Amino acid sequence: MKILVLGAGMVGKAMALDLAKNHEVTSADKNSEALKKVELSDSSISTQLLDVSVQKELKTVLKPYDLIVSAVPGFLGYEVLKTIIESGKDVVDISFFPEDGLLLDKLARAKGVTAIIDCGVAPGMGNLILGQLDTQMKVTDFECLVGGLPKHRKWPFCYKAPFSPVDVIEEYTRPARYVENSQTIVKPALTDCEYVEFEKTGTLESFNSDGLRSIIQTMPHIANMKEKTLRYPGHVEYIRVLKESGFFDQNPVDINGVKISPLDFTSAVLFNEWKLGEEEEELTVMRVTVKGKNSEGQVERVVYHLFDEYDKATKTSSMARTTGYTATAVANILMERIFNDKGVFPPELLGRHEACFGFVMNYLNERGVVYRKEREVLSQ
Amino acid sequence: MKILVLGAGMVGKAMALDLAKNHEVTSADKNSEALKKVELSDSSISTQLLDVSVQKELKTVLKPYDLIVSAVPGFLGYEVLKTIIESGKDVVDISFFPEDGLLLDKLARAKGVTAIIDCGVAPGMGNLILGQLDTQMKVTDFECLVGGLPKHRKWPFCYKAPFSPVDVIEEYTRPARYVENSQTIVKPALTDCEYVEFEKTGTLESFNSDGLRSIIQTMPHIANMKEKTLRYPGHVEYIRVLKESGFFDQNPVDINGVKISPLDFTSAVLFNEWKLGEEEEELTVMRVTVKGKNSEGQVERVVYHLFDEYDKATKTSSMARTTGYTATAVANILMERIFNDKGVFPPELLGRHEACFGFVMNYLNERGVVYRKEREVLSQ
Repeated sequence: MKILVLGAGMVGKAMALDLAKNHEVTSADKNSEALKKVELSDSSISTQLLDVSVQKELKTVLKPYDLIVSAVPGFLGYEVLKTIIESGKDVVDISFFPEDGLLLDKLARAKGVTAIIDCGVAPGMGNLILGQLDTQMKVTDFECLVGGLPKHRKWPFCYKAPFSPVDVIEEYTRPARYVENSQTIVKPALTDCEYVEFEKTGTLESFNSDGLRSIIQTMPHIANMKEKTLRYPGHVEYIRVLKESGFFDQNPVDINGVKISPLDFTSAVLFNEWKLGEEEEELTVMRVTVKGKNSEGQVERVVYHLFDEYDKATKTSSMARTTGYTATAVANILMERIFNDKGVFPPELLGRHEACFGFVMNYLNERGVVYRKEREVLSQ
Repeated sequence: MKILVLGAGMVGKAMALDLAKNHEVTSADKNSEALKKVELSDSSISTQLLDVSVQKELKTVLKPYDLIVSAVPGFLGYEVLKTIIESGKDVVDISFFPEDGLLLDKLARAKGVTAIIDCGVAPGMGNLILGQLDTQMKVTDFECLVGGLPKHRKWPFCYKAPFSPVDVIEEYTRPARYVENSQTIVKPALTDCEYVEFEKTGTLESFNSDGLRSIIQTMPHIANMKEKTLRYPGHVEYIRVLKESGFFDQNPVDINGVKISPLDFTSAVLFNEWKLGEEEEELTVMRVTVKGKNSEGQVERVVYHLFDEYDKATKTSSMARTTGYTATAVANILMERIFNDKGVFPPELLGRHEACFGFVMNYLNERGVVYRKEREVLSQ
């Protein structure tokens, strides 16, 4: 089976390497240096210089492949996905575009395509877990706490990311939606900041972010759902200092006759401060809590815990491991025809299938990405 | 007696109004709107449109006056002072220029000029108090804590200033000198942050700033001297967040092809956040502590406390009152020939003269700027 991985960044590369163990893989990117790094890591992987924003070129390149894995930048993601579906190719997408991917469902069904979107760790694994548990119990509450953090805490922000500060700040300014008593509530991001204990990292702080995405549409029967981002304590206060003082404003200010938006400027200043080093150790913390009534009528709480770290041996970041291996697991599910439905599916819909859920959990487990499950009966 | 006040800003205007009660006053500025405001407040004051950076023009304008009060921006202050002295005019200076004014002492003596520099509240009154107490006791310790603060504390910085953020940030980045065991110590600004209790404002935080200026030269016999700036608690932490993350860097960064220094940018962003409103209430807090052996051989501590507020009736800021009225007091001392020495004198040298010290204290007292003195014998 021939797979094309679009994007040879940190996660794209890890996915190409993982898939190449059992498949014929081509890695495509517009950055030739990124492609060279992939080649150097595994010479069995073919590379393809490609600018996915040129639709015609993309269409031509897609043709010979059985499956596409899309890890392009978010702002390009929706258009690329549409082109892939139009080309009649099955696809696993982790571009996390801002648009509503379910709008392409009709097109995918018409084209006989299976498209799994938002297929990383978050969004991704939280959805998958919820989807599975939703078949086992009458779910009333869903909470997903998740964060990617550097191992070393450098004051003041104690934060690093493999992507631009603009994208992080976007998460800190976009209003956050959650569901309470079956009502969708919109609050500013960074609100409801609370301390939460974690075994490996100690106390972290959690705050509202707009991470529920498709779940708001696909799980209307669940009364309470929220997603919160995790950071080391203190981060949010300092982010709020910047936000409150105008450093995230988009209206340009005049500096020596040049108009610059504070947001652009702040991103440039924070670029070095927040830049994750090439081999800098980082980690992923996630806690998915689902509450509901089980088949015996008991109120039950199920918690999935994830703590994953940078892999020193293979120099693979935890973000690449937790996000990328979820996507490659699902790529294998599609290739082995374990899931064959046509349309656009966020992971909560894939997770309804026990075989798919089990496959992903097992696949991740083999790669050392271990979700520890805890189950507690709260009342008879 | 004819007095020329250079600068019709917040403090310059208050000085012109104060001096006009008993003298013939001209207010000069390059900003005609500022001059109009002075005229509207007191029609007996003449105004003069003047760009003090044009030396020839300045020299011509100075001619008819008996005394000059200079309240020009700091970066122009030294050159303006030099021109005034060269013109043979007595002068009281509150431009707080960064250069060493004592370098003009020889010129002033040659020209038969009396020049009192740094003649505000800080620098100014701390120096004056130290100068006086230095004649009464063998001083071992001097500490001056001082801050100008808004009455309303708006998170996050709880700070407002009538001047540009660039000048405030300069104070936060310039290394701070203090004297310990007769050695001059240099530390980064913002260091040694401590909480200090004040009756009217509650707890404030104090930190090293480079405020000793001339005292380091003129008081070499005092073993321990320090000056610290006061802010509402929390300010320093947030300033450090900006400093540590590169927001005060002067090396330009590239924003969409334009090179901008983070310091310039940060100043522009904070301009509105820190801008003191036209009629916004603010206050001045100062505590000058002097310790030493008195004439009876006892270790004694003398503390001068100042708490001064915006004057709602006359709409005069506390900064203008405490800084400006110190300068106008000294202007009157010069005009009444209470002090007649020739040369450049920082206030600690003027303060050695009991009559001068008493005059200033009384003058300020009449204007409601009250320094409360506390004296305590620590050991027999």
